[in-house]
Amino acid sequence: RNTSQSAAKKRLDISGIYPPIATPFTQSEDVDYQRLDDNLKKYSNLPFRGLVVQGSNGEYPYLTPEERVQVVKRVKQTLPEDQLLMAGSGCESTRATIQMSQQMADAGADCLLVVTPCFYRGRMDSRALINHYTKVADSSPVPVVLYSVPANTGLDLPVDAIIQLSQHPNIVGLKDSGGDISRIALVVQKTRSQGFQVLAGSAGFLMAAYAVGAVGGVCALANVLGQQVCDLAQLCVSGRWDEARELQYRLIEPNTAVTRQYGVPALKQAMEWFGYHGGVCRSPLQPLSKADLEQLQVKFSSNGWL
Amino acid sequence: RNTSQSAAKKRLDISGIYPPIATPFTQSEDVDYQRLDDNLKKYSNLPFRGLVVQGSNGEYPYLTPEERVQVVKRVKQTLPEDQLLMAGSGCESTRATIQMSQQMADAGADCLLVVTPCFYRGRMDSRALINHYTKVADSSPVPVVLYSVPANTGLDLPVDAIIQLSQHPNIVGLKDSGGDISRIALVVQKTRSQGFQVLAGSAGFLMAAYAVGAVGGVCALANVLGQQVCDLAQLCVSGRWDEARELQYRLIEPNTAVTRQYGVPALKQAMEWFGYHGGVCRSPLQPLSKADLEQLQVKFSSNGWL
Amino acid sequence: RNTSQSAAKKRLDISGIYPPIATPFTQSEDVDYQRLDDNLKKYSNLPFRGLVVQGSNGEYPYLTPEERVQVVKRVKQTLPEDQLLMAGSGCESTRATIQMSQQMADAGADCLLVVTPCFYRGRMDSRALINHYTKVADSSPVPVVLYSVPANTGLDLPVDAIIQLSQHPNIVGLKDSGGDISRIALVVQKTRSQGFQVLAGSAGFLMAAYAVGAVGGVCALANVLGQQVCDLAQLCVSGRWDEARELQYRLIEPNTAVTRQYGVPALKQAMEWFGYHGGVCRSPLQPLSKADLEQLQVKFSSNGWL
Amino acid sequence: RNTSQSAAKKRLDISGIYPPIATPFTQSEDVDYQRLDDNLKKYSNLPFRGLVVQGSNGEYPYLTPEERVQVVKRVKQTLPEDQLLMAGSGCESTRATIQMSQQMADAGADCLLVVTPCFYRGRMDSRALINHYTKVADSSPVPVVLYSVPANTGLDLPVDAIIQLSQHPNIVGLKDSGGDISRIALVVQKTRSQGFQVLAGSAGFLMAAYAVGAVGGVCALANVLGQQVCDLAQLCVSGRWDEARELQYRLIEPNTAVTRQYGVPALKQAMEWFGYHGGVCRSPLQPLSKADLEQLQVKFSSNGWL
Repeated sequence: RNTSQSAAKKRLDISGIYPPIATPFTQSEDVDYQRLDDNLKKYSNLPFRGLVVQGSNGEYPYLTPEERVQVVKRVKQTLPEDQLLMAGSGCESTRATIQMSQQMADAGADCLLVVTPCFYRGRMDSRALINHYTKVADSSPVPVVLYSVPANTGLDLPVDAIIQLSQHPNIVGLKDSGGDISRIALVVQKTRSQGFQVLAGSAGFLMAAYAVGAVGGVCALANVLGQQVCDLAQLCVSGRWDEARELQYRLIEPNTAVTRQYGVPALKQAMEWFGYHGGVCRSPLQPLSKADLEQLQVKFSSNGWL
Repeated sequence: RNTSQSAAKKRLDISGIYPPIATPFTQSEDVDYQRLDDNLKKYSNLPFRGLVVQGSNGEYPYLTPEERVQVVKRVKQTLPEDQLLMAGSGCESTRATIQMSQQMADAGADCLLVVTPCFYRGRMDSRALINHYTKVADSSPVPVVLYSVPANTGLDLPVDAIIQLSQHPNIVGLKDSGGDISRIALVVQKTRSQGFQVLAGSAGFLMAAYAVGAVGGVCALANVLGQQVCDLAQLCVSGRWDEARELQYRLIEPNTAVTRQYGVPALKQAMEWFGYHGGVCRSPLQPLSKADLEQLQVKFSSNGWL
Repeated sequence: RNTSQSAAKKRLDISGIYPPIATPFTQSEDVDYQRLDDNLKKYSNLPFRGLVVQGSNGEYPYLTPEERVQVVKRVKQTLPEDQLLMAGSGCESTRATIQMSQQMADAGADCLLVVTPCFYRGRMDSRALINHYTKVADSSPVPVVLYSVPANTGLDLPVDAIIQLSQHPNIVGLKDSGGDISRIALVVQKTRSQGFQVLAGSAGFLMAAYAVGAVGGVCALANVLGQQVCDLAQLCVSGRWDEARELQYRLIEPNTAVTRQYGVPALKQAMEWFGYHGGVCRSPLQPLSKADLEQLQVKFSSNGWL
Repeated sequence: RNTSQSAAKKRLDISGIYPPIATPFTQSEDVDYQRLDDNLKKYSNLPFRGLVVQGSNGEYPYLTPEERVQVVKRVKQTLPEDQLLMAGSGCESTRATIQMSQQMADAGADCLLVVTPCFYRGRMDSRALINHYTKVADSSPVPVVLYSVPANTGLDLPVDAIIQLSQHPNIVGLKDSGGDISRIALVVQKTRSQGFQVLAGSAGFLMAAYAVGAVGGVCALANVLGQQVCDLAQLCVSGRWDEARELQYRLIEPNTAVTRQYGVPALKQAMEWFGYHGGVCRSPLQPLSKADLEQLQVKFSSNGWL
């Protein structure tokens, strides 16, 4: 017990807001490092806790292993010293995840966001996932954050697996993008004695997640409305719930539009409207149709953001 | 605009906590009105806003149309005058729902909880559902509450349908049992100018729902831990969020156990532990296995309730 | 073993094709018995094994218990003596199903089609379903056919439950509308020693079902293209698989259109095109949109039926 | 029309049975090329049309890009000249798929099996998938086979996309692992004029697929019961449907066990029983539990194979 408590005390503090940054591409679909730098400079003026590099919005499944590491390196060069670089190192196999985690730590990642492997989802029960994450965390030079994103993976990291993994000294938290708020509350209840930290995986349920004990969020919408998402977090932390609620309302539709509804192409389009480089996605992701584009715009303008 | 505002002002206030009461049966599976009365007397001492008769936990699909009306009559006899009787009058066809609504209003229902028809769920789009609810609300002598419970119906009442229906003067609110907290917040945002009221359909996300603007809850767990669910609601209404959070945590596992996990048989078993008559369910619902029963008990005891 | 073999020998032969007849309504949504009679007379000229009254296409969830029995009575009056009247008697509760089964048998049903109860689908495991069907079959005066239709119920009757139930002397077969052909073959393999008979629940996989050992079909499309569905069955039974295949192809799109795609309103519309009374559905089922109507027509005309 | 007919004539004939071979690993989870060679030698005595290298059963998501190519090279060295090497070259991005396709063709692949990209499944509509496959097929030096495997990808390649893609001169067929037999029949109906060829993705519905016009199968079970799967195919091709049916029955349970039920670990275990090298999977895939192992054995022994 003493051990776990002292472990809890030593855990990396990951509380706060992170944009899971998009990866800009040139028209020929190469990584556009210059435009990436431009975005990073603008983000450095916002009160983020850090950046997530290669969450689902970073099109990481479309990057080569080399590109994934290279992007981390590039971000590290620009990131303010007091911000965290949380790098997505998840691969399907345990061995590839271990290797990628090592490479990203070497490239400057402060901690790692490790998505559930999912291709053989029928076999990814608690036993398999606990085994996977334990091996990854055992070997990782930097702390690990679990990452459950059922909309992409078709798999929800089971609560019993999270509880057991929260006892690992090198696993510091969870990014939960599923949004089941009872589940989020249950995870907080069952893991807080370990100093385990839960991050909301979306701005759509950020306030509710704070209400039940989450300590931050990795929010696609923060790529676009970064200050506003940070403001919402601050209102929650300060207990100004009535103001928080009003702000939360205005973020739900834009958030849904750039995530579940229209996806990364919409996120990148919206970034253009707000002064960032978004641009094209890698194929097979397609640009929005004209009708979808108009709907996307309405979701921002009707809430007063455009 | 004036019209809708004055409509809003006149709406029945449904804010607060309701247990969706269970229907006790004798060993031969007849409705046990005496045991029902006993439960109602105990509930009358708790600070409920009212009772829901024939929500999903009342085994209403297992009652004959005559029994459904009879149970409403019986509840009306015992219910304190200042409490609301919200009766579940939903049937698959519009005409049967209209008839049942009329009969329940005649039997003393103060308002009606109308579940989405669902057998032909592939055809139950917004057009069909708006048409259904409009006809029901047009003809109903008492106000109507929409009811979306996808775990049972396989159907989530679409947000655009809710928004349009919120403008009907005789539709006063929604019970949302799906628990998607972003959706609940969005519904509140889009309907509050109409005075439309959202009730959480479960104690598992009650605090989060209050945080984003819900005004109450219809909570199976309130059949068992009625005072505690009311306490949680009161803490939320008073803005005592830190205390609310601690209480919310302790209700999640018991709530899941008596709803999604083990269902109505578990709810009725837990009622026995807390001094109410639960008893058998109508077939084909089966009693819990011994292993499930033990697990159920752990969910209450490990949270300090047994 | 001897017992079950002799039971097998005595089982009612249900092999062949059945249209699950639609229920015609007047413009005011009352049952239109005259138009029902008209349809029945036309059907009596086709080589059906019998009629299914109140399958999913009969809008049975929209009929009152009294109407359900009355429709069975009416059909019995017109049905040729050598055809079977298979009546859908499934209700949510076991006791209601037992009562309805008795009433339908009294009204002239030769056998009963009993859909899985489904509202509490999370609790409808093999134990509950075996218990339900056993009680129903024990008390039924006429043989019982199991009915699994996951598109409507969200529930697939488990194979282990089917296998166990196939040993009941009063359960003679299964209508499987899920269409998982491996599952259908497995059920045939595991139950044929009992003389258990499997009927395909749709014309879309009728030939494949015959190929793996089914003995007939309850096909919505047979309400419209009755002769053709019977022809397909006959080709399969005769082992003329190449001809069967060509006919099967031409039935797939029309079948999907009147079932999964556009549902009962499309079935009733198509009936009008082919000389039957279809007409309106009961609310909340809505008429097809103009666009859907055009698509529906194309599905028939492009396959040479219109 | 002439163009497409001549294209049809020139298409590579892919009809027949393929095992999607497993990838043996050493205890330290490296590719075990020696054991792979041993398996290949045994397979060379069976009447396969060819081998699929890196279908879902090959654990391809767990191989590095280099390993994927290396395994193809190794297989090519052992493969009999008259057999086809169908290599799985699908990646999430179009550009990676194009590159992998080129490398595998260079390594000796006769044709390519290209799985649907799926991580951003919400955006993988027909437009995106047609675009993806067209680019891949345009640039591929060898013919392309579409691959839809919803159990792993959560995505069913839409029929309208298949129909359009069937017109591409370098796309010769589809492996459909979803098993919806109406859909398979519809695809055959709509594409056969192009000479497009459909392969069943599983031995569980192989006979039914042949019945509706498929020309072969890629069957995990063929890794274990290769001769029997080929026998089943031959019986179907010869029109000996009654014998085919009896053999099909006996393959369903073993097939389900090594695919949907227990997955690749079960396939590899069963291979050991039948004289092949199976061995461990790469982590996070875990060995079967003792209970699962016993169940697996029963599925083979109760059907007369062990």
